[in-house]
Amino acid sequence: MQLTLSSPLDMHLHLRDGKMLEIVAPLSAKEFAGALVMPNLVPPVTSKEMVQSYKERILQVCKDDRFTPYMSLFFLPEYDYEFLQELKDTILAIKLYPAGITTNSEGGVDNFSLEALAPTLEAMNELGIPLCVHGETNGFVMDREAEFIPIYERIAKRFPELKIIMEHITTKEAVDALMRFENLYATITLHHLHITLDDVAGGLLRPHLFCKPIAKRPEDRMALRKVAFMAHEKVMFGSDSAPHPRDKKEAPGCAAGIFTAPVALSALAQIFEEAGVLENLQKFVSDNAQKIYNITPPKKEVRLVKEPFEVPASYADVVPMFAGQELKWRVESVL
Amino acid sequence: MQLTLSSPLDMHLHLRDGKMLEIVAPLSAKEFAGALVMPNLVPPVTSKEMVQSYKERILQVCKDDRFTPYMSLFFLPEYDYEFLQELKDTILAIKLYPAGITTNSEGGVDNFSLEALAPTLEAMNELGIPLCVHGETNGFVMDREAEFIPIYERIAKRFPELKIIMEHITTKEAVDALMRFENLYATITLHHLHITLDDVAGGLLRPHLFCKPIAKRPEDRMALRKVAFMAHEKVMFGSDSAPHPRDKKEAPGCAAGIFTAPVALSALAQIFEEAGVLENLQKFVSDNAQKIYNITPPKKEVRLVKEPFEVPASYADVVPMFAGQELKWRVESVL
Repeated sequence: MQLTLSSPLDMHLHLRDGKMLEIVAPLSAKEFAGALVMPNLVPPVTSKEMVQSYKERILQVCKDDRFTPYMSLFFLPEYDYEFLQELKDTILAIKLYPAGITTNSEGGVDNFSLEALAPTLEAMNELGIPLCVHGETNGFVMDREAEFIPIYERIAKRFPELKIIMEHITTKEAVDALMRFENLYATITLHHLHITLDDVAGGLLRPHLFCKPIAKRPEDRMALRKVAFMAHEKVMFGSDSAPHPRDKKEAPGCAAGIFTAPVALSALAQIFEEAGVLENLQKFVSDNAQKIYNITPPKKEVRLVKEPFEVPASYADVVPMFAGQELKWRVESVL
Repeated sequence: MQLTLSSPLDMHLHLRDGKMLEIVAPLSAKEFAGALVMPNLVPPVTSKEMVQSYKERILQVCKDDRFTPYMSLFFLPEYDYEFLQELKDTILAIKLYPAGITTNSEGGVDNFSLEALAPTLEAMNELGIPLCVHGETNGFVMDREAEFIPIYERIAKRFPELKIIMEHITTKEAVDALMRFENLYATITLHHLHITLDDVAGGLLRPHLFCKPIAKRPEDRMALRKVAFMAHEKVMFGSDSAPHPRDKKEAPGCAAGIFTAPVALSALAQIFEEAGVLENLQKFVSDNAQKIYNITPPKKEVRLVKEPFEVPASYADVVPMFAGQELKWRVESVL
């Protein structure tokens, strides 16, 4: 059995910088035609120069002209129209982080009133720049996403033309909200289709499955699977692949993030096949994103075959999801 | 400010065996007058000889004749009256574990029908031996305790004279159930009065706060605090102090359990004082247990003073709760 995916896209990817960038970026470039690259570096990516320079560093290590790093800007409330107009052709989206909510998000937003967000949101709205949001409050860990939904709704109502992407959604509440507003879209990760909190902390504690937003309840996973498996036009694949060196993951105070980029297409093929919806994977990993973002990625045909794929124990010192396990599909060739 | 506790008791304690027993048992013996010792060794404690031999090993390393290790037997459904009659004076209680639910519980119960449990329960009922229960199903990690409550109710109804102790309760559902049946009692740990899932996985991942049952929601902790702080006659302190060597806690696949025994009285004094109910701590850590179990522990006066206590980074290779932090009360003397 085989499957050919045309120009797969990863619409939520952490490539980091420096040595980590060199390890992880080529792995995404090999199997994807493009990826939306997150801007939470230290310091965050907040200017045209920073975007351009980061993009150059990515292209340098990828050495693949059929991989497009779609760039994002770190949301600050005080951007204005002129500033963003200058930047418009350099970025695909602006990513909003609540302050301190995840890795390198300390400079994020702490006032979610429309008044506070208005300068940037109004300019984005006029310029047609999509807004990507890490939608969590600082409440109890299992409630953070559901508690954030009123903020999504407030922005979606005030700016009905603005495309808002609910990033890495994890709950049935988020799926419900997604359906209530025409201008809401969402990315869904591989790992949130796979695991629940049980996998992280139900048996022994598994730091390599610890991520933000944390994996939720079985009924939440079911809601995500439902819209992903039907490749609902409002959802698209975003891995949120978030590499950390092994020593940051395996010590007390483990950082949040699961490294899935090099196993994503194999694992997605496996669960889509198990669900009997392999034919919907093309939409989920590419077509929907092309429509939502209005992009045409480089042509790239990724052929997967149903043959065992032994996932490496690590890529350099980064441990991937399914490390040492066997997946049922492997990428055979990229044309 | 000072506080004298008379004969404090820890009614749920893991002392392990061998080298670990040597490290941890003297720490409990120093500050407590007695403790109910859990039987989940490898193999579990299932005979009179095993109970007696384990008790001797404990007494040998404690070297304190004012510390009573109250012994428990590992619940098996097939015990009969004669067997338990033989054992009655050797043990204080029988501890029931669902199979595989926590550390060394593989030989536990997997059929909770009254028919299956009847031989042992009927004999315990006739002999007046209390039943201690680790009350969790193998369901979703946040639901396991609430899902187990019908089993508590079934046993409580069928054997209204049998004293049943809901061990280390963590949810408001358990507190509610506790109040519905006269013959239900409960232990509450220090850590479940302190933390929620947020402390384990809300920021970075904290393996030293990972335990079974896992810490739950803020409203659950509030329900536990309410009955503990008023020293409700149905609840008593049981630390569930569960030591693991540092390398078992700090590596992927971290074992469940928090080591609290040597910090328990200091930390309890602190939170009871902060709640304005310091006068209720005596009941919570001793008087209630004496009534529930009908025991008279050795006389031991433990004087605490409100002075900084720098918690050691570790005891041998076992990391305690609050390692390296400062608690506000310390044990000054034991008379």
